[in-house]
Amino acid sequence: MAMASVRIRQAEEGDCGNILKLIRELAEYEKLSDQVKISEEALRADGFGENPFYCCLVAELLPAPGEPQGPCVVVGYGLYYFIYSTWKGRNVYLEDIYVKPEYRGQGIGSKIIKKVAEVRRGMGPPAGFWKSKHVALERGCSQLRLTVLDWNKGAMDLYKALGARDLTEAEGWHSFRFEEEAMRELAGK
Amino acid sequence: MAMASVRIRQAEEGDCGNILKLIRELAEYEKLSDQVKISEEALRADGFGENPFYCCLVAELLPAPGEPQGPCVVVGYGLYYFIYSTWKGRNVYLEDIYVKPEYRGQGIGSKIIKKVAEVRRGMGPPAGFWKSKHVALERGCSQLRLTVLDWNKGAMDLYKALGARDLTEAEGWHSFRFEEEAMRELAGK
Repeated sequence: MAMASVRIRQAEEGDCGNILKLIRELAEYEKLSDQVKISEEALRADGFGENPFYCCLVAELLPAPGEPQGPCVVVGYGLYYFIYSTWKGRNVYLEDIYVKPEYRGQGIGSKIIKKVAEVRRGMGPPAGFWKSKHVALERGCSQLRLTVLDWNKGAMDLYKALGARDLTEAEGWHSFRFEEEAMRELAGK
Repeated sequence: MAMASVRIRQAEEGDCGNILKLIRELAEYEKLSDQVKISEEALRADGFGENPFYCCLVAELLPAPGEPQGPCVVVGYGLYYFIYSTWKGRNVYLEDIYVKPEYRGQGIGSKIIKKVAEVRRGMGPPAGFWKSKHVALERGCSQLRLTVLDWNKGAMDLYKALGARDLTEAEGWHSFRFEEEAMRELAGK
């Protein structure tokens, strides 16, 4: 297969169906697909309302010159949001990054991560995304965090090659989660 | 020492000096205090402007009846913000939780976590905190996540006792981080 030209762009509301398909593929790849409860409606409401909870990039194949100019095929995505470090201040968190298996090895994942890293220079969010935060980010988002499964060697090697440190390995950080039921009990209702 | 009465309340801008002291104490306890670069001004600007990046609870000792009614002493804090799961939707992340060593064992940490868990019922953020998000949260924040150092047995045991799962142990998740320098290189500048 010839290498097609790939464009990374901000997701639009109409991409949510494709993004949900890729979210499910990623969860299958991670062998955790029984945990996916999200709906396309929730993705639309939570990402494209007045105060979105997340921001998303999609990677799409551009038709080669001479090929029929149909709708572009979405082959990957990166979903991120802004978080806060009490050590370094504003941070960006890459919740998901995924490229369909048949399009790996072409640098698409690296391009997505690079684009998220550029957020620190004020590039990331589309107009309307946490407006004043966006402006604030021009003053610098100092770190990019993400989480990866330890058996996913390919992804771990890529992140390390791009300059990330494995903090679980280096410092011993463990991720904990209270599920909804535990939260309900905690909250006393 | 008699057990004093403790109140958990939303932090105000004037608490930032005390919060910064506790952030430094926590980092020292974690043996990572060289990583703390945050300033009181940044905490004020990022937490108490029009579009705050985080939300914070403080635990303060109330003077006993008959004692002089001076300013309350802040003995702990919990700093959190809203994140997004592509599996479950809206989540809350507890970035830091800390109680001064001499006030541990009284359930103050559990009270802070409980209060954060209540966020899912629309309780958490003060007026003005991501206004429409706050309203959205009344429809449910489905998970609470946090990260803890593997040698911090006391904290790990507490979170487990409160109903959290160790996902690094159970599923193999590792935390990765790109520092500012790596982000700059990634972004090509």
